[in-house]
Amino acid sequence: MKNKVAIVGAGIIDFGVLYDKSPDMMMEEAYINALQSVDKGIEPQEIQAAWLGTLRGRFTGVTLAHPTRLFKIPVSRVENACATGNDAFRHACLAIASGVYDNAIVIGCEKMNDVKGGLIRLAAIKDIWMRRARTMPSFFALRGTRHMHLYGSTKEDFALISVKNRHNGSLYPHAHFKKEVTLEQVMKARIISWPLGLFDCCPITDGSSCVIVCRADLAKKYTDTPVFVAGSGLSVDSWMLGEDESLVGFPASKDASGQAYKMAGLEPKDIDVGEIHDCFSVTEILNYEDLGFCEKGLGHKLIRDGVTTLDGEKPMNPSGGLIAKGHPIGATGVAQIAEIYEQLRGNAGKIQVADAEIGMTHNIGVGRDNTGSVSCVHILTR
Amino acid sequence: MKNKVAIVGAGIIDFGVLYDKSPDMMMEEAYINALQSVDKGIEPQEIQAAWLGTLRGRFTGVTLAHPTRLFKIPVSRVENACATGNDAFRHACLAIASGVYDNAIVIGCEKMNDVKGGLIRLAAIKDIWMRRARTMPSFFALRGTRHMHLYGSTKEDFALISVKNRHNGSLYPHAHFKKEVTLEQVMKARIISWPLGLFDCCPITDGSSCVIVCRADLAKKYTDTPVFVAGSGLSVDSWMLGEDESLVGFPASKDASGQAYKMAGLEPKDIDVGEIHDCFSVTEILNYEDLGFCEKGLGHKLIRDGVTTLDGEKPMNPSGGLIAKGHPIGATGVAQIAEIYEQLRGNAGKIQVADAEIGMTHNIGVGRDNTGSVSCVHILTR
Repeated sequence: MKNKVAIVGAGIIDFGVLYDKSPDMMMEEAYINALQSVDKGIEPQEIQAAWLGTLRGRFTGVTLAHPTRLFKIPVSRVENACATGNDAFRHACLAIASGVYDNAIVIGCEKMNDVKGGLIRLAAIKDIWMRRARTMPSFFALRGTRHMHLYGSTKEDFALISVKNRHNGSLYPHAHFKKEVTLEQVMKARIISWPLGLFDCCPITDGSSCVIVCRADLAKKYTDTPVFVAGSGLSVDSWMLGEDESLVGFPASKDASGQAYKMAGLEPKDIDVGEIHDCFSVTEILNYEDLGFCEKGLGHKLIRDGVTTLDGEKPMNPSGGLIAKGHPIGATGVAQIAEIYEQLRGNAGKIQVADAEIGMTHNIGVGRDNTGSVSCVHILTR
Repeated sequence: MKNKVAIVGAGIIDFGVLYDKSPDMMMEEAYINALQSVDKGIEPQEIQAAWLGTLRGRFTGVTLAHPTRLFKIPVSRVENACATGNDAFRHACLAIASGVYDNAIVIGCEKMNDVKGGLIRLAAIKDIWMRRARTMPSFFALRGTRHMHLYGSTKEDFALISVKNRHNGSLYPHAHFKKEVTLEQVMKARIISWPLGLFDCCPITDGSSCVIVCRADLAKKYTDTPVFVAGSGLSVDSWMLGEDESLVGFPASKDASGQAYKMAGLEPKDIDVGEIHDCFSVTEILNYEDLGFCEKGLGHKLIRDGVTTLDGEKPMNPSGGLIAKGHPIGATGVAQIAEIYEQLRGNAGKIQVADAEIGMTHNIGVGRDNTGSVSCVHILTR
């Protein structure tokens, strides 16, 4: 599949608490933004297939067809926990690489704030997790304390991730949180699940995003600066915490990025910029290790040494990541793709990373009882 | 994609009201049945990717990984209303045709009987449908009465579909209902939504099914009698009843089968046997027209003339279809593929159709407000 698929358009809506917008309105807006972003233009009638990435149970392929008026073509829904958007994108790429379709759109969408039954339906599944007082923050806090114990990372190391991502978000027009936070604020914030305080956690965000992909050999029809899908990987792992080898890092991320690196013929050192899963501050540090940007146990050094800041050697989450941009599940992964697309085209405005040629997107998702039991990675190139 | 993908194994569990089986147990059983069905054997470690087709919100890719112990490979969930299983199969085929994977499994699974909140959660969506007294039977009854009005079909024509499918189901070991019904019984049964009586409706069934697919050029490694995927199509249509052109038939089925016929280079007359969506008796008659087996308005003649009975010219739903076999949403489409696989291999036992060389599978699914707004069709060949 390497370099058989190109991205030629991308649109995002302003992420936030969108009580005034229905999912239909959100999808439509992201779709129109993506259509209008295509340098040489694209007609809706040209689109041959579509994918919807969303976690919510009530959606289905047809749900996407309506706001976009994409009838008489295949529209499918893909769901894979927090990696839903990434996996929807992956399916569009596989379908184009199969030769069946010349182009496709991928839309991610999630309403997180006015879901019936409240947030708890998305944030925790009652019958298994709640009984055990296991919530998302506590799942990830557990991994944080283990990392601290084994490798000497500190609460301050984690906090630096939040400071970095909130800074980046302050420069990114679509971010949910556009206000910076200081290290002191993060350190002193109300504890959610120690060592994670309020500012170590991503917010509850509504959002939608859209990318347009096509056969690489047709890309010039739409733009002179397409972005190519060099590598793609997805892997699952046991959701039983008791089967976890170390509690530090996520084997699925290692496997998924391994697949993507192999397909792309690239290595971790080649990645210029990444949008990676930072549902909690500590998660980003664990990702540094899983994705091969440093050795196991040294993730916190990267943030300490400023390697992953916007002007660092290997900027991570220039858009603010999940912590500042927000995490509307299905939309998150597609927005990552959209963001890296703009980065590689030199079109990312205030968050532009200098000379970004190769970018990565990454999300992990939660199985029933464990964090990070699915991971999806893409490597994009100019 | 034509003939690039082969089916080399298939397993089904006994459909029915399975209070004693968890979804994990159901998926595991279907998976093991499929593995054991492979003529020359297959090792679980050989499997490179997996798809789960299920409608239920709580499932995700990882959910399938556990009962099958398929870790360190990509596992994704696809959902597309009642066409969920067919679309999951379609995605596995696209992925194999892309060249990324050599083989894959597809599992469909649905628990319909002990879903929290009761059946109503699956059978109707409260806030839109229930307010308008629109339920599945009434949706399809509306189309039935319209067909009667325009083309002179009768309640007895519809009933003959139920008699046929219940007869077929009585011969099929995995069917939910194995008891025949007489024309009189169907005609006199309690009315659910006129003209549809109790026996015109498919039951509420739990089930799981699994097929194993691989690159066509590798098929002989697994069996000497593989079945090839000649054509594949999926299409969506508006879910707004007011946008429906005629209320008779489903444009999505016409589009999806059109895509599949075109890819396969085949015509309706070439189809020897089909497993097609008969959620209600009248649906099967409408399908005859949409899939091109007869002209518009003549569907009921086919059942009148015995064309689609087991020993007819073009047998439809030899396994009993949704009406007798049952309709566990995600499992339904995958079970159709499994069944046609056995038919084309001459392995279908008491429901074997003589000299079946080309088979079709077909499901329609419901968008928010309308019937048949998604349709997925596959054409399989020896």
